[in-house]
Amino acid sequence: MQRLDSRDPAFGDHFARLLAVKREVAEDVDETVRAIIADVAARGDEALVEYTSRFDRLEVGPETLRVSEREIDAAVAACPREALDALDLARARIETFHRAQVPADHRETDALGVTLGWRWTALESVGLYVPGGTASYPSSVLMNAVPARVAGVPRVAMVVPTPDGVTNPLVLAAARLAGVDEVFRIGGAQAVAALAYGTATVAPVAKIVGPGNAYVAAAKRRVFGQVGIDMIAGPSEVLILADASANPEWVAADLLAQAEHDPAAQAILITDDDALADAVARAVEGQLATLPRAGIARASWRDYGAIVRVARLADAIPLVDRLAPEHLEIEAQEAEALAARVRNAGAIFLGAHTPEAIGDYVGGPNHVLPTARSARFSSGLGVLDFMKRTTLLSCTPEALRALGPAAVTLGRAEGLDGHARSVAIRLN
Amino acid sequence: MQRLDSRDPAFGDHFARLLAVKREVAEDVDETVRAIIADVAARGDEALVEYTSRFDRLEVGPETLRVSEREIDAAVAACPREALDALDLARARIETFHRAQVPADHRETDALGVTLGWRWTALESVGLYVPGGTASYPSSVLMNAVPARVAGVPRVAMVVPTPDGVTNPLVLAAARLAGVDEVFRIGGAQAVAALAYGTATVAPVAKIVGPGNAYVAAAKRRVFGQVGIDMIAGPSEVLILADASANPEWVAADLLAQAEHDPAAQAILITDDDALADAVARAVEGQLATLPRAGIARASWRDYGAIVRVARLADAIPLVDRLAPEHLEIEAQEAEALAARVRNAGAIFLGAHTPEAIGDYVGGPNHVLPTARSARFSSGLGVLDFMKRTTLLSCTPEALRALGPAAVTLGRAEGLDGHARSVAIRLN
Repeated sequence: MQRLDSRDPAFGDHFARLLAVKREVAEDVDETVRAIIADVAARGDEALVEYTSRFDRLEVGPETLRVSEREIDAAVAACPREALDALDLARARIETFHRAQVPADHRETDALGVTLGWRWTALESVGLYVPGGTASYPSSVLMNAVPARVAGVPRVAMVVPTPDGVTNPLVLAAARLAGVDEVFRIGGAQAVAALAYGTATVAPVAKIVGPGNAYVAAAKRRVFGQVGIDMIAGPSEVLILADASANPEWVAADLLAQAEHDPAAQAILITDDDALADAVARAVEGQLATLPRAGIARASWRDYGAIVRVARLADAIPLVDRLAPEHLEIEAQEAEALAARVRNAGAIFLGAHTPEAIGDYVGGPNHVLPTARSARFSSGLGVLDFMKRTTLLSCTPEALRALGPAAVTLGRAEGLDGHARSVAIRLN
Repeated sequence: MQRLDSRDPAFGDHFARLLAVKREVAEDVDETVRAIIADVAARGDEALVEYTSRFDRLEVGPETLRVSEREIDAAVAACPREALDALDLARARIETFHRAQVPADHRETDALGVTLGWRWTALESVGLYVPGGTASYPSSVLMNAVPARVAGVPRVAMVVPTPDGVTNPLVLAAARLAGVDEVFRIGGAQAVAALAYGTATVAPVAKIVGPGNAYVAAAKRRVFGQVGIDMIAGPSEVLILADASANPEWVAADLLAQAEHDPAAQAILITDDDALADAVARAVEGQLATLPRAGIARASWRDYGAIVRVARLADAIPLVDRLAPEHLEIEAQEAEALAARVRNAGAIFLGAHTPEAIGDYVGGPNHVLPTARSARFSSGLGVLDFMKRTTLLSCTPEALRALGPAAVTLGRAEGLDGHARSVAIRLN
């Protein structure tokens, strides 16, 4: 963990260095991924079965690639009641929040008689990638599938690798709760290829969403164009703005909740209070002693953690906007006023009783959020990611007479006489 | 041009082949582009000046990279009044249409005392790429810059190469009309790099939009992540649905308005009327004789044009959804009813008096639209492309007590005890 002070003459350089830190080493897997995609596109199920045997050590046939409803029933039955109830509470709140995001269509007829507007439609189908193994999170299934359902996507397919045949029952339970239509026990670049190009068993989709490892990310980049993709997520981040009113143990717990994700995660505290800074630094060390994932959290805090001291909390606003954090917590007296001045953040958590983990699970807003400073130009996942807008235009003969001459002029000015003619031919 | 008939037993294969046609040869310029970007990122203005000399044969210094207000004044003075008036009409209509797209913020407090919602903010800065030479379209300047302005982007910078020093005065006039703040006479991968990484003269932006050649497209793909980018546009397309009521000369003019863009453009007619199909085919040949860009349009129509005969126009709907055309014109009796059944199209033009060229210039909707079947999963350019959404969450102590236990349960179920602890520590 490094400590910075905005009153230090070299602060500008220090902060620029903090901003520039690359927390991800991009593995060069592109050639491997290219070959897998081409193979699945050419040989379909046969290739899927082979790769699943090779990478997941799982023998399946085309007829068992899909997880049956009975298997999902059994998985649900194997989940603790308490966890199912918590998942269902999460689903209901996520659904309510996202329902408010359903966009309105628009249509009007202007004074010239031009009718214009737009219409939103759901994507025809979506594929949801869910990682296997330890990073297989039922909460992420809900965060991806529920907005798709709210958007009205008629077909939601999910792929989840089951290395050595091991499935996470809560992941299947979340799929059931969220209304996922089809689940396939495939993963890696081969699953992305199947969703993009289709096989006899896996029908192709229009868009692929969800997190994955370097192979999955490279495969998504590669099939982009053939299908839509969501953002490529990087390691998670939290930035906490806190003043003397904050509880240092709570702040430390929130920093560590982020750090435990990944050695490449980043947790930063910005404060105007030296005593809080010191107390949080001590509390982090204290809590690490008893944290199950202390190894991961300690590495993240050591390599990427930071405590930044500013003269006044208002001075932090331009720093926040440059960092453009995925998660911003504000535990300070003037939380609302500070939040109102922030331009770049994926999600803001206001006040001492709103730890980010509430938002990860049951708050209602989406936990799929822009990382690596991309909150400067992008939003978290939402209903709009599962819909697209078609604009509409309709002219009466009179409207065309009013607007046509300007279109003819511009078409000719751009050297596109065919454009001009397609209008002029209707004006005679 | 090929003719297909849905009543032909082999139609399924023929249509699948039409869908699969690749109209673009991807030039492999990635290594060149990588080197240029690295060089501009390292050497800044010095590299920009060198590349501009080399590629555009234009000698500039850092102090003349930016186009001065006096030069823009002079360009505006050099434009015909009629063209300026047409551009201003276009600007006003584009602005009015896009104002209706400004999204609403949302905030509510639920029964548990959780306040949640979201806030939309404009991107802090945007860079607009405008091609030089013959594909330098003032209308595209308006279509990209006006929505950025409507979104409230405080800084809109534009780059436009001026090969051999040649500028298009209407492009500069459009920039002035649209309220572009800065114009730089640079292009290619070097301009994209300058916008992404910044130089002493060109401040970096948060997102780069606008069309360009293979080098520009490769550069945009490469800087994605460092900045946001818009879609990578492919060759333009129109699909016209027409019945016996359509005027074959008008339909032919609309097909050619598309075909004249690019030898790789695609124009398709689907009709339920043999007489119309034949008349349109004849009219296309007739009109080609007098079209200034006949060479381009003829190549496009020959290589990628198609007339598809269906038994009933309603049978065309699934074909439309599979083609997912950038532009869909419906010149038929039941235009509205047919349009209502279409899921995948970038923009729909309804009725015989709405040639697509009206939408290219003065209709109001954006002419930057998804190509190459990407209307299955994406929308045309709009105000939302220049804004991003930050979600907000705030719990009272009581709300946290109500929601906290479920979050603790899910955190533990996912093996993220630090998440669970950050909530539990506040519940005691």
